[in-house]
Amino acid sequence: MASTSSPTLSQAVLARPISGNASNSSSSDRVSLSLSLSGLKFSPLSSSSSRRASGSAHRRRLPAPAPTPSSAVRPIRAAAVETLGTATEASLVEKSINTIRFLAIDAVEKANSGHPGLPMGCAPMGHILYDEVMRYNPKNPYWFNRDRFVLSAGHGCMLQYALLHLAGYDSVKEEDLKSFRQWGSRTPGHPENFETPGVEVTTGPLGQGIANAVGLALIERHLAARYNKPDSEIVDHYTYCILGDGCQMEGVANEACSLAGHLGLGKLIAFYDDNHISIDGDTEIAFTESVDTRFEGLGWHIIWVKNGNTGYDDIRAAIKEAKAVKDKPTLIKVTTTIGYGSPNKANSYSVHGSALGAKEVDATRKNLGWPYEPFHVPEDVKTHWSRHVRAGAALEAEWNAKFAEYEKKYKEEAAELKSIFKGELPAGWEKALPTYTPESPADATRNLSQQCLNALAKVLPGFLGGSADLASSNMTLLKMFGDFQKDTPEERNVRFGVREHGMGAICNGIALHSPGLIPYCATFFVFTDYMRGAMRISALSESGVIYVMTHDSIGLGEDGPTHQPIEHLASFRAMPNILMLRPADGNETAGAYKIAVVNRKRPSVLALTRQKLPQLPGTSIEGVEKGGYIISDNSSGNKPDVILIGTGSELELAAKAADELRKEGKAVRVVSFVSWELFDEQSAEYKESVLPAAVSARVSIEAGSTFGWEKIIGSGGKAIGIDRFGASAPAGKIYKEYGITAEAVLAAAKELC
Amino acid sequence: MASTSSPTLSQAVLARPISGNASNSSSSDRVSLSLSLSGLKFSPLSSSSSRRASGSAHRRRLPAPAPTPSSAVRPIRAAAVETLGTATEASLVEKSINTIRFLAIDAVEKANSGHPGLPMGCAPMGHILYDEVMRYNPKNPYWFNRDRFVLSAGHGCMLQYALLHLAGYDSVKEEDLKSFRQWGSRTPGHPENFETPGVEVTTGPLGQGIANAVGLALIERHLAARYNKPDSEIVDHYTYCILGDGCQMEGVANEACSLAGHLGLGKLIAFYDDNHISIDGDTEIAFTESVDTRFEGLGWHIIWVKNGNTGYDDIRAAIKEAKAVKDKPTLIKVTTTIGYGSPNKANSYSVHGSALGAKEVDATRKNLGWPYEPFHVPEDVKTHWSRHVRAGAALEAEWNAKFAEYEKKYKEEAAELKSIFKGELPAGWEKALPTYTPESPADATRNLSQQCLNALAKVLPGFLGGSADLASSNMTLLKMFGDFQKDTPEERNVRFGVREHGMGAICNGIALHSPGLIPYCATFFVFTDYMRGAMRISALSESGVIYVMTHDSIGLGEDGPTHQPIEHLASFRAMPNILMLRPADGNETAGAYKIAVVNRKRPSVLALTRQKLPQLPGTSIEGVEKGGYIISDNSSGNKPDVILIGTGSELELAAKAADELRKEGKAVRVVSFVSWELFDEQSAEYKESVLPAAVSARVSIEAGSTFGWEKIIGSGGKAIGIDRFGASAPAGKIYKEYGITAEAVLAAAKELC
Repeated sequence: MASTSSPTLSQAVLARPISGNASNSSSSDRVSLSLSLSGLKFSPLSSSSSRRASGSAHRRRLPAPAPTPSSAVRPIRAAAVETLGTATEASLVEKSINTIRFLAIDAVEKANSGHPGLPMGCAPMGHILYDEVMRYNPKNPYWFNRDRFVLSAGHGCMLQYALLHLAGYDSVKEEDLKSFRQWGSRTPGHPENFETPGVEVTTGPLGQGIANAVGLALIERHLAARYNKPDSEIVDHYTYCILGDGCQMEGVANEACSLAGHLGLGKLIAFYDDNHISIDGDTEIAFTESVDTRFEGLGWHIIWVKNGNTGYDDIRAAIKEAKAVKDKPTLIKVTTTIGYGSPNKANSYSVHGSALGAKEVDATRKNLGWPYEPFHVPEDVKTHWSRHVRAGAALEAEWNAKFAEYEKKYKEEAAELKSIFKGELPAGWEKALPTYTPESPADATRNLSQQCLNALAKVLPGFLGGSADLASSNMTLLKMFGDFQKDTPEERNVRFGVREHGMGAICNGIALHSPGLIPYCATFFVFTDYMRGAMRISALSESGVIYVMTHDSIGLGEDGPTHQPIEHLASFRAMPNILMLRPADGNETAGAYKIAVVNRKRPSVLALTRQKLPQLPGTSIEGVEKGGYIISDNSSGNKPDVILIGTGSELELAAKAADELRKEGKAVRVVSFVSWELFDEQSAEYKESVLPAAVSARVSIEAGSTFGWEKIIGSGGKAIGIDRFGASAPAGKIYKEYGITAEAVLAAAKELC
Repeated sequence: MASTSSPTLSQAVLARPISGNASNSSSSDRVSLSLSLSGLKFSPLSSSSSRRASGSAHRRRLPAPAPTPSSAVRPIRAAAVETLGTATEASLVEKSINTIRFLAIDAVEKANSGHPGLPMGCAPMGHILYDEVMRYNPKNPYWFNRDRFVLSAGHGCMLQYALLHLAGYDSVKEEDLKSFRQWGSRTPGHPENFETPGVEVTTGPLGQGIANAVGLALIERHLAARYNKPDSEIVDHYTYCILGDGCQMEGVANEACSLAGHLGLGKLIAFYDDNHISIDGDTEIAFTESVDTRFEGLGWHIIWVKNGNTGYDDIRAAIKEAKAVKDKPTLIKVTTTIGYGSPNKANSYSVHGSALGAKEVDATRKNLGWPYEPFHVPEDVKTHWSRHVRAGAALEAEWNAKFAEYEKKYKEEAAELKSIFKGELPAGWEKALPTYTPESPADATRNLSQQCLNALAKVLPGFLGGSADLASSNMTLLKMFGDFQKDTPEERNVRFGVREHGMGAICNGIALHSPGLIPYCATFFVFTDYMRGAMRISALSESGVIYVMTHDSIGLGEDGPTHQPIEHLASFRAMPNILMLRPADGNETAGAYKIAVVNRKRPSVLALTRQKLPQLPGTSIEGVEKGGYIISDNSSGNKPDVILIGTGSELELAAKAADELRKEGKAVRVVSFVSWELFDEQSAEYKESVLPAAVSARVSIEAGSTFGWEKIIGSGGKAIGIDRFGASAPAGKIYKEYGITAEAVLAAAKELC
């Protein structure tokens, strides 16, 4: 972290602009670029590298080739030295880019809602990525080894829909473009992976996408390190991302990009759409930092494409350069004009988030020389893009053959990798989970959680994760593995740093990379407040991330109210498609992990204690699977005098109170209510068997907000909880002062029965 | 934002280290430092600037002065040229610093809980700030013009408690130090402004404090620009902050610091405790970015103090330099050793968050030559610090006299400023709020909100705020004011940029600066997820921030589920000490603002619509003040057949269904439930008058999670809401498909009555 008074080399070359002007680019620069081995996918024409190396004519139009796309395609990276070719006749590129622009314009116009500005400005990047650079199979959007693309500036989703449409994805047909932002369409207002195959992650909330991209690149690096062999790079893809000024301002993006720099994720290539416009107008009013300098500080390689509107070769060269930098992620700052082509609205906030309007659409058609009807894709553009279906199938077939070879040689690794990309859990994995008896020693559920994490990592190849600088408090270290660091990416302990929001979003990227990946991440439960933006996207985008949240109540003691969650259980119970689990002991912790692993399309939040808890009689993994279940009962006929309901660390208090009441002759049922969501999903019969409607004498106890408990205890019940902030003192003292005690349960129960 | 290939001047001098070694500091450097007009507070000895300028002897011990503190004190910045003096005999400084260290060690040891590492490493900075630099009055911690100090690394709070104790604050007596982290003490585990006068803000959750500090510095700049006169700088203080590696990793810190750089907040001076240790060990495992370079990108001035352990003069020089830089905030990177002085635990994570243990405490006493009993403050140290009580009183008295002069000359400004620092709202301010009749045009509550904001800004001098780049969507612009920019800080429209978390934390800083400041901030309601960390601190720290949250439901339409809040109302209803308000029309919006303004120690969240709503008969400001109230009723004897309950945009649907039911002869009551918290606070009689226990036929409708509604509607009621994520389509379509309709209310009511 030391700085010196003289600039470092990287400072000196910081954000070296790639200008569109041949006269100020030295030939040696260009030569060095074309020496790189990694390059662009398609180079159907004769190599243009010699032209480029000569430093001349690099923006002049090339003579049109015969339109024979089938023979012109070289769909794979087979050549030892790939060349920096302009993929097709230049005017066709221009036409394709304008097709993208007008598909976006037309769809937004038809919906009278949406964001045309970004697609119009980013169409050149989009075209080059999807038509020339990226390796994918349109007919199998889930092909494991595909390059990933993330539109972090998700509002510009018509860019991606247009590209998926041109590339031949079945998810975005012409009728889908025409039903943009309409009920039931596959083209919603922001990209959603679960609606539109070809979309990798769900974006729109700014900054999430670039952090997802970090996750995708991180896991690629991990899997490559684990499974690649000297004779077979079976895992080998890039992650591309487009992010805008809004993403750049978000803290989550900085967090994730800082980690990406730390880990040196060289196959992450992010395009910063530097258009100087955000919703409120020119970025001058709020955002005047030097993004380049910040990213240099974060350890990224930075390239500046000055002319992102028409400098296609500059974009190509930047990608080439980015690929050549193996040890750092690259930020390609592409200066564009938002709404490029619109004569009256370009470069203004008015083109950001509204339809252009019929008049301006006409003016834009005129300005860009676009004579076509709305939604029209010119035949030559269609023909040109049509090769991707064949090329993509060939790419996947080639990879499948490669994998078959790999499988022969490396049986064990192949089986693991297969389980990761197929999402099939190994048979009997759940037997690895520990079980406990009441005689097992008392322990904190955070420690019991660590036993589960370590047990699962042994049997689940896709299981990995870490903590936001609290590994030793959250107890999340996998003991048989080392740290995932720049030079040891094959390890499974990820050190996220104090970056909760970035951590959550990175885990979403990992989970959505391949169905067999099961990322977990950890911090104190109260700091879910820092990462809730990412956690909600886990829930929405069906990312089965496991959130290991320790220090789950006032039971953490002296750290005080800033660190003591109160309303957090309720806040997640209210969130759709997420499992809030609060286990009471070892068996329930194991049960919570079983549930979390099984629910691959639903994230889980595990609330775990800092303090020791006894192993309670009656708890079980099977019980947890029901969400709420009876752990002890001395009633008969499903007619207890009172039902005591607890969760997590307070289940013990309910059990103690029950002992007392039973001594006094009462028929008492104790129910563990570990997950409200799972209980909701049980049959009416089961629910009645646990909480009979006829028994209104119910007492709940939980060291958190009572908000919502009326649903469980009914109007006649009593909820013991905490509806104010916590306090700084030893845990036992706070429990007592706040009335979270067995005595309180006893007293409440006596009032009711 | 342009970068060039040659380093800029600021790059060239980036993080110029201030070393403790006189031989490598040029005399011209030192001379330039001592030319600054703003300087250190105390320079009781004869000026040492000539010694320093000579470039020699700048670390040798000075001869001890006679201990006559009363005559030695020059408590004010009266001298035209202040000097860089070592405040006291050097060994006394050392002794004072060790006193701070051992008070922290002893308190943590007694509590057997806490964080000794930071106070031991940062004691030198702490001493210099509180003993030599900062202007404050220990006997009036709320003196308006005091310098503000924020310990962003709040876990190190024993540093601040020790300093407050030495400085003579009544809030931290010896017995308070001895009850560190105990029940009922004024020295909780993390600093809490509402527990400990002298603590400005509540910190602990990392990154919040530096963002609060940005808020404090921002509002100082604003008030200075509005109220200072050529002949009277009536507002004039610095904001100091200490932040650690953890804070630096948090996105919220980057967001706030980016805005601070944009606004050029020159009186913000942040010390980065660069100790290379976080909880999980060396920062090398997760945090290897160049913080200096990042902050240079953010537009800050950067200074590096290489030896923060004993380089006291270097720290002093850095502060002097920072003060001389008027147009940029300064980051002083101070390289320290965590746990400095502990022979076996210094520079390791083990000293971060645990007591040293008796043996290591002994070893540290020996190592630092500390012969005293626990909690002992040596007499000479006590005597030395004792001057602050007198000096502080003098500072305040001087300022009061200055203000009296100001008041004579600038009556109107003085009255405004007084209302800001006394927190007295101008009489009759609430009359400015607009009212509406059912004939007033239908409008979105976001627009009605803008009418309120503009009305309030006219009558409340401390009212200001802005949006996270959504001013034109949130409708938050104050039309009679311009933008608060670097060169126009007197304006009241703050452009926060797309930095929700930073925005919330900055507003906490503003709110806690002076009791008459009423900051508001805005984004889409769903993005409260991004800023929940700051919002919870608003609630905990009693910061009356107004959160203007528009686009509050599926009613926002096409932007889809990523932008549609579902669980957010419930999530805030569960949070202690925050008001969740969802007004239904113009009168209720005005009522919500009245409540929000009145509640200066409780933040408010206003959920507002994007879509138009009619002005409903029966709504009122007075009704809103009750939280829940009847807007229409055709029953008698407090025995309606059914009670229909709605909030916000769905109140209209309840009213429509009531009309239908009444046509069918039913006695129907319609209740607006704008704030659950306020309703909870009403008398039992009032509650019974609105929701009579005998009437179990209740239907609620709200376009959000039904979680929690059982409390209002009881076991016999029906809650109409949304317990899944939203969808992308025109709003009316989604409402219909999701069954959020008057018809659904009607059907549910018919089932119940």
